[in-house]
Amino acid sequence: MPYRLSRLGYIEVRVLDLDDALQHYVNVLGLIVTGREGRRAYLKGWDEKHAYSLILTESDTLGMERMAFRTVSPEDLEYYKDRLKKLNVPFATIESDYKRGEAIRAETPSGHTVELYYTMEYTGNVLPDVNPPPWPMDLKGIGVPRLDHCLVTAADPTKTIRWFENVLELRPSEYVLNGSGDPIAAWLWQRPAPHDVAVVPGPDAKFHHCAFAVETPEQVFRACDILAMTKTKIDYGPSRHGITRGTTVYFFDPFGNRNETFGVHSAYQLDPDHKPICWTEDALGQGVFYYEREIIESFLSVVT
Amino acid sequence: MPYRLSRLGYIEVRVLDLDDALQHYVNVLGLIVTGREGRRAYLKGWDEKHAYSLILTESDTLGMERMAFRTVSPEDLEYYKDRLKKLNVPFATIESDYKRGEAIRAETPSGHTVELYYTMEYTGNVLPDVNPPPWPMDLKGIGVPRLDHCLVTAADPTKTIRWFENVLELRPSEYVLNGSGDPIAAWLWQRPAPHDVAVVPGPDAKFHHCAFAVETPEQVFRACDILAMTKTKIDYGPSRHGITRGTTVYFFDPFGNRNETFGVHSAYQLDPDHKPICWTEDALGQGVFYYEREIIESFLSVVT
Amino acid sequence: MPYRLSRLGYIEVRVLDLDDALQHYVNVLGLIVTGREGRRAYLKGWDEKHAYSLILTESDTLGMERMAFRTVSPEDLEYYKDRLKKLNVPFATIESDYKRGEAIRAETPSGHTVELYYTMEYTGNVLPDVNPPPWPMDLKGIGVPRLDHCLVTAADPTKTIRWFENVLELRPSEYVLNGSGDPIAAWLWQRPAPHDVAVVPGPDAKFHHCAFAVETPEQVFRACDILAMTKTKIDYGPSRHGITRGTTVYFFDPFGNRNETFGVHSAYQLDPDHKPICWTEDALGQGVFYYEREIIESFLSVVT
Amino acid sequence: MPYRLSRLGYIEVRVLDLDDALQHYVNVLGLIVTGREGRRAYLKGWDEKHAYSLILTESDTLGMERMAFRTVSPEDLEYYKDRLKKLNVPFATIESDYKRGEAIRAETPSGHTVELYYTMEYTGNVLPDVNPPPWPMDLKGIGVPRLDHCLVTAADPTKTIRWFENVLELRPSEYVLNGSGDPIAAWLWQRPAPHDVAVVPGPDAKFHHCAFAVETPEQVFRACDILAMTKTKIDYGPSRHGITRGTTVYFFDPFGNRNETFGVHSAYQLDPDHKPICWTEDALGQGVFYYEREIIESFLSVVT
Repeated sequence: MPYRLSRLGYIEVRVLDLDDALQHYVNVLGLIVTGREGRRAYLKGWDEKHAYSLILTESDTLGMERMAFRTVSPEDLEYYKDRLKKLNVPFATIESDYKRGEAIRAETPSGHTVELYYTMEYTGNVLPDVNPPPWPMDLKGIGVPRLDHCLVTAADPTKTIRWFENVLELRPSEYVLNGSGDPIAAWLWQRPAPHDVAVVPGPDAKFHHCAFAVETPEQVFRACDILAMTKTKIDYGPSRHGITRGTTVYFFDPFGNRNETFGVHSAYQLDPDHKPICWTEDALGQGVFYYEREIIESFLSVVT
Repeated sequence: MPYRLSRLGYIEVRVLDLDDALQHYVNVLGLIVTGREGRRAYLKGWDEKHAYSLILTESDTLGMERMAFRTVSPEDLEYYKDRLKKLNVPFATIESDYKRGEAIRAETPSGHTVELYYTMEYTGNVLPDVNPPPWPMDLKGIGVPRLDHCLVTAADPTKTIRWFENVLELRPSEYVLNGSGDPIAAWLWQRPAPHDVAVVPGPDAKFHHCAFAVETPEQVFRACDILAMTKTKIDYGPSRHGITRGTTVYFFDPFGNRNETFGVHSAYQLDPDHKPICWTEDALGQGVFYYEREIIESFLSVVT
Repeated sequence: MPYRLSRLGYIEVRVLDLDDALQHYVNVLGLIVTGREGRRAYLKGWDEKHAYSLILTESDTLGMERMAFRTVSPEDLEYYKDRLKKLNVPFATIESDYKRGEAIRAETPSGHTVELYYTMEYTGNVLPDVNPPPWPMDLKGIGVPRLDHCLVTAADPTKTIRWFENVLELRPSEYVLNGSGDPIAAWLWQRPAPHDVAVVPGPDAKFHHCAFAVETPEQVFRACDILAMTKTKIDYGPSRHGITRGTTVYFFDPFGNRNETFGVHSAYQLDPDHKPICWTEDALGQGVFYYEREIIESFLSVVT
Repeated sequence: MPYRLSRLGYIEVRVLDLDDALQHYVNVLGLIVTGREGRRAYLKGWDEKHAYSLILTESDTLGMERMAFRTVSPEDLEYYKDRLKKLNVPFATIESDYKRGEAIRAETPSGHTVELYYTMEYTGNVLPDVNPPPWPMDLKGIGVPRLDHCLVTAADPTKTIRWFENVLELRPSEYVLNGSGDPIAAWLWQRPAPHDVAVVPGPDAKFHHCAFAVETPEQVFRACDILAMTKTKIDYGPSRHGITRGTTVYFFDPFGNRNETFGVHSAYQLDPDHKPICWTEDALGQGVFYYEREIIESFLSVVT
């Protein structure tokens, strides 16, 4: 099975006030605004090479409007059109969007909107193309380089996990299995990194968090310092996930959408024949909260 | 163009004495011996899931006997057979090798032996399959998790770079360009990480170094401490490469083959339409030795 | 006022079972046993140069039996004898103890036993005296280099703080002040480091924790990994204290005595005219738990 | 012997152009200008609590004009007046200087000017006095918190080392000993940290470097990145010293005075009865340059 998805391309998050949201996503996380149209702002991390990876949309509700995966090639987008037809998965074709070409849009069993696209304006990152320094010296706040992954909840997580696997051909890096051996939580990849998207038990159509990369455990501490100094509400962390091994801090945007900065230093190598790492249901707490070895209440109860 | 290579799979390195070599690769680097047959030992890092990534072979000479890329699927191996035939690139088919299935073997214009294979025994890493800890507590020495990349020299580097690009369809993440715009050095990837193999100017058929992953700048320092404490000859570092952004230390095995531990924390994301980062020829020094901003003499003169 | 105390020299901690205790303090914390006599074991970190810094004593109860400060010189011990006499502070003179010379012993208003001593066998650390490496390669567990500080609770913390300041002439690096401007918690130093001992509100004669040094935030994460992998109960962390700025993890020995590994990287410089950093009473939570910005319940309720 | 010196208080460095110097010391090192008078600027790190720790003076020559140690108390300054008189060491008394009280000034056998003082304006650091964050978010460049130590050269280093020990009562933390057992290099302390000042062989009256603190190995890498990005000439590093264990990078101000950022994470604890760590003369290279295990040529040849 070839790799047909390059990575999680962008997500759209609903916020109650766009200016307050930008104060957080720009000054605290350090994302860069690359466009603004009406009630929408387009942002990316300093090292991302396409037009955007995060859309913030002013709305009356919170949560994630959609997640979008970039295909490896334009042909892969056609492949998925055929595949969804063949599998009788309803989808819409969207001609174009801001600085983006054609996409197809479908819905997971859990009610999450998923898009696939190939074409987006290639902008380069913020560094020069020739003889660049390793990083830019004028970053704000945490200064995250890029979007890493997102996590969503599903009332019937097994069904949604299977949908991601069967329809989009995402691969499981790690599973939490119930007594029957069915995955009740899954970390799913296509890009060789521990996850592009994860699914855990919870209400349908809800958003758990979106994660941005940081490089090292020390940078996770620095992120926490900046969050505390800017009075950003920290949910959990610094800590380490057992599942994915990532170092982490969870925190909230001004409205309650959960963000994460995720330490990519510990990402493991993935081959196409990777056998998923398995966690027993009673070890879900330990898997997510490796130091506490038990579920933190807010993990399952606070979603948007 | 799909991804058809999953990663650099293994390399074979010639050493003058196998026991002395193991003392270094096992006790200093912390690799794990997974097999030994006569004058050959098979090793891997603790987090690798297939049988081996490094073959040490006792010989009268030093250097790299071969590098091997693992394909994404068995079909991709067939694809390359067809491709090499079509391109009139001579190659041999090798039925099997130690814990490995069929491979094809070709030679680069620079005289380096390259193999492609899909099948190798899946062993899992050293951690339990269920509810694993993030790392094993009983590592030796530096305790590297995995092979990362290798670097070779070529008398006509442009020709060999073009061979890797045209024949194997490796993609350039970074180029050093001469005045005519031809790459005289290239960092080439298929796995979305800055490089699986790199080519720099130098004598044909020579081995510059093989690199093993470490997670953070602090771990690069720790590696240097261990190298110094074990009286391992350090060539260069700790330092940072401008090209690939990796933190690094170069050192030698007991015979003079160069090794590297390479900090993967700063690896950037790669998309299929990645435009190579370019370095001018006069910036090669700065590109490789970001802090010195000039070529360290041994970089170009010491190869095996 | 001269510096008359060199540092917190040792503490004695009561444990229910000495063998189980050693399993924790030796294999998890990585302390080194330097002596054992009956129901007592003497331990130190690998970089400590005198015979011990921790005494573990088998007992029916938990908690700290005594803390001992080493004076800068033998004369300073005489100075304190005179001072305590002059101040009418009752004290005992103890001729000698295991590998230790004369000490004086007094009791704080909170009922904590404090000793002062100068003479203890000088053993050197575990490294060679000549041309030593920077650290030993054969450490167990976290491998802490030394004891850093201890923290105790007092029902009338102001009174005990004033006792440490007036009788022992410890200096405040940081205070939490109540509305009347009295310190209800204090971090006290003589050695130029943020604290040798701290006092917070709580029951009299109780032990809150003893802390051992680690170097960096990454080492705090590594300590947490080792604690989780050895199923050691983590109380809180990894995190950062606002007060002292230290990165931290709190955890428990097998019986419930609290330990800490404390990141010394962020220790600030202290001059004799240092004006204490002040925290308002409502900021105590933020001061201790910089990321949560509120008191973690166990901090005030769990003492031994 | 009591501690009578609190720390290296300030140094005065000669530069050829004050504006160019400030561009370096402020924008690259991140020091803060606290005063300017004519051809002199006064600077300090963000965490220093007195008026300044570095004086930059425009001059026709380079090098260090003077180093000054702060005494623990005003009485200690009187003690040293008496001591120098008794030892027939000539000294001058300077009534006052910029934001500083009385000082005494003497000359080492190597021709270095040393001052002792107690009184300097207490300014506090740049953080608020009440409920402060752990660090300020608006630092420039490397953002060093404080001066750490200085290193000077002496044609007869043993003589100058003995002067520091006998006259100023500095204590040796580490020695390089020649075949006769005499120290030809010494790291000297009073503040319990590996050194306030060091003396190595070289021309008389010359300045080797002044060092500013950074917290961790990762911060040493970050310092190197910033040095390279600002095209600041790096002399050596990142690396580790065997002597003092510090992680390090040496670099030059725009005129050729050597600076260091020194990782304080690995500072060891010092007691008054500390026996100096000894290095054999043939291990001097290894002692200073732990990874190369040999003297880097510029170390002994480039002084100002």
